Amino acid sequence: MTTPLPAALLERLRTRLGDRFSTAEAVRNQHAGGGMHLPPLPPQAVAMANSLEDIVAIVSACSEFGVPLVPFGAGTSLECHVGAARGGVSIDLSGMQRVLKVNLEDQDCIVEAGVTRNALNAHLRHTGLFFPVDPGADATIGGMASTRASGTTTVRYGGMRENVLGLTVVTPDGSIVRTSRRARKSAAGYDLTHLFVGAEGTLGVIADVTVRLYGVPEAISAAVCSFPSAATATMSVIEAVQLGLPLARAEYLDPSAIAAVNAAFKTGHDVADTLFLEFHGAEEEVARCAERFKGIAADNGGGEFHWATDEEARTALWRARHHAGLAIAMSRPGAAPWSTDVCVPISRLAECIVQTKEDLASAPFSAAVLGHVGDGNFHVVLMIDTSSPDELAAAERFNDTLVARAIDMDGTCTGEHGVGLGKREALRTELGGAVELMKSIKHALDPRGLMNPEKIFI
Amino acid sequence: MTTPLPAALLERLRTRLGDRFSTAEAVRNQHAGGGMHLPPLPPQAVAMANSLEDIVAIVSACSEFGVPLVPFGAGTSLECHVGAARGGVSIDLSGMQRVLKVNLEDQDCIVEAGVTRNALNAHLRHTGLFFPVDPGADATIGGMASTRASGTTTVRYGGMRENVLGLTVVTPDGSIVRTSRRARKSAAGYDLTHLFVGAEGTLGVIADVTVRLYGVPEAISAAVCSFPSAATATMSVIEAVQLGLPLARAEYLDPSAIAAVNAAFKTGHDVADTLFLEFHGAEEEVARCAERFKGIAADNGGGEFHWATDEEARTALWRARHHAGLAIAMSRPGAAPWSTDVCVPISRLAECIVQTKEDLASAPFSAAVLGHVGDGNFHVVLMIDTSSPDELAAAERFNDTLVARAIDMDGTCTGEHGVGLGKREALRTELGGAVELMKSIKHALDPRGLMNPEKIFI
Repeated sequence: MTTPLPAALLERLRTRLGDRFSTAEAVRNQHAGGGMHLPPLPPQAVAMANSLEDIVAIVSACSEFGVPLVPFGAGTSLECHVGAARGGVSIDLSGMQRVLKVNLEDQDCIVEAGVTRNALNAHLRHTGLFFPVDPGADATIGGMASTRASGTTTVRYGGMRENVLGLTVVTPDGSIVRTSRRARKSAAGYDLTHLFVGAEGTLGVIADVTVRLYGVPEAISAAVCSFPSAATATMSVIEAVQLGLPLARAEYLDPSAIAAVNAAFKTGHDVADTLFLEFHGAEEEVARCAERFKGIAADNGGGEFHWATDEEARTALWRARHHAGLAIAMSRPGAAPWSTDVCVPISRLAECIVQTKEDLASAPFSAAVLGHVGDGNFHVVLMIDTSSPDELAAAERFNDTLVARAIDMDGTCTGEHGVGLGKREALRTELGGAVELMKSIKHALDPRGLMNPEKIFI
Repeated sequence: MTTPLPAALLERLRTRLGDRFSTAEAVRNQHAGGGMHLPPLPPQAVAMANSLEDIVAIVSACSEFGVPLVPFGAGTSLECHVGAARGGVSIDLSGMQRVLKVNLEDQDCIVEAGVTRNALNAHLRHTGLFFPVDPGADATIGGMASTRASGTTTVRYGGMRENVLGLTVVTPDGSIVRTSRRARKSAAGYDLTHLFVGAEGTLGVIADVTVRLYGVPEAISAAVCSFPSAATATMSVIEAVQLGLPLARAEYLDPSAIAAVNAAFKTGHDVADTLFLEFHGAEEEVARCAERFKGIAADNGGGEFHWATDEEARTALWRARHHAGLAIAMSRPGAAPWSTDVCVPISRLAECIVQTKEDLASAPFSAAVLGHVGDGNFHVVLMIDTSSPDELAAAERFNDTLVARAIDMDGTCTGEHGVGLGKREALRTELGGAVELMKSIKHALDPRGLMNPEKIFI
């Protein structure tokens, strides 16, 4: 049980924030996280920050009263990162929506934490530059940094790990720290940028993020191709990566995912193991890449390529992929989706997917597989009747087996979703004593354990 | 003054290591660092580790006796990283030369810390893969990770920050920690890999490193081109980077550097502001890139391109660039070289180089400029008569001005050399309160301050 928030803290935050501070149940429940297999954990109050100064005031107040603080962006994370595991205040950064600076010549920009990736790309529309990291959901850049998000374009552009150049962070004592200056590379001391990217809000609150931008490619071409099996689809991508073919996106959808997409979006894709592909570059480079990939696909028994080159057709194609999770969720009314997230060295990926699909054959729930296969990362979306203890237990067993298999293949329990509350045991299995080092760092930077407590490790 | 090493420690290490443990003055002096503007700081003893178990034994022994420990690789670092600032034991890892595993399909490999980059590439010669990071010196992979090295190919392949996938580290208490598994991406907890990359041995001893490898390009083409000024040479590269042209190397040498290279290697390059360039890729991509770059260069008043496509000619060309530092050193007999290392956002690079060259015009010493200009990083090699207090003082002032200018341009005091003993004040100017965070982490992981003491910060 959590104790009530101190009246003096409520007063302090209400005075500063006015109606941007709330203890209303509806507001608290909107900031509770959960979903999937994890329960919602509402905070005791929600404080909306609109500026760096707001963040400092909220962090300082919570610190003074010894109250836990949980950063919240768009609330799209998948391991209950935003749940208030020990109560306290949710600091909602979604009001921090300013693009502070676009440095066209340096191809970078500085955005407040609450700017979403779509909002950033809309802002950049007429600059010739874009921000490539694409986890599917329209997450905030601050949240994406916090969970070390990646997604469909990682195989070409990298994820947040590769694309965050620096951060402004408010540390648990209310200090403002800038982790890095804006040079493209630096050997100036410990890499604090990478420490905060993926720290899931446990070391401080991200106020703004400097990210890399890229020139919009001269040509973009997308294609869909079906294959006789999961193994042949996956192997095609692996071979392309090994040959150094610069795929911009290489997404695998299994027949269940395709069927769900067809049903939800009235598309007519062959219900088969399928790749959604995208090539970026100069006209001739895109053409050459696509041609070479067609050769690889043909050698693996791939069918016809369905191309989408104009923006409208590409948008339709990728909307189907981006909303595949939703489509899968709609495929079993009343059930809740649970998305796994392992990532393995690509030499083991085909084997890992094939063995996982064998496990699914005997599962008491429906499921579909979606993979960022160029990186070795794939998701199994389990559709669970959460009122059935049998299904829940079977889902737990399935995920445990999958995580153990990935770790056994020298892979990771989470390629891009993060640890949150859901993967803490798996993290121990994966990294052992390294978790003690993480805890030492946490204790050094947040000795009272007020920043997003109980996430990543206990 | 340092106190003598405890007899029991000497006995312990001598028993374990035999003649791989030494207190001989000549051996200690080989491990003292220094050079440039920093004095050598010999350790009290040198312990040669040949295995992970040796490292654990040496670290544990030093920990037990409270004796400082300084990791040593090839000794090529430039800010006295290997100097024993508080005495103690130098742990020499150059005997750890095994390539533990090459994973061809995953394009990565695991090497012991003492493997040098040239040794690794020799080992990979028949695999079709190579390790691209090239700081010039034949440094060890462990040392390159520790200092977050980069170099000539960073513009295309990234430096150690981008290419280390994981590390095995022996922490100050003698524990073995693996920072990551081998998946290409992961969101599994704090990014310990990046914490140790660039920590300069202050948080533990790196025992092995997992690095990314790349397919040897189908075609490689190198060229030399001279320009009417530093600004036009630099602007050509900046424009190419902004257009997304995939330069593999883009090195600037000023007329003094070219004159030194010509004198040392009997080459006949025009004594002018010059770019050394390299393009990697498929035949047609290399040709297209080179053609586009020629257009950019011509617009900036660049002269004729001198091409080197076969391996022998390319090797000769890059040998001249790699040994330019040596050539510059030879240009003023009796003087010692001091290499600066700022890096700025590329939008400010031309301006930064031009202003710096103006400063040099009135300097009492000779100097030459070498730049990894695609990243915004350049070195001024000052040739100092270290017996002249006036020259030393002028060099200090010159470097202070340069560092202040770079930081003022939102750049860094060190693009790739690291902080060591030489850049500690500059680091404070650059990152302010972030240095306190670094110190907290240091104190948490190494509470007695035994690991490479006094480096990065005091």
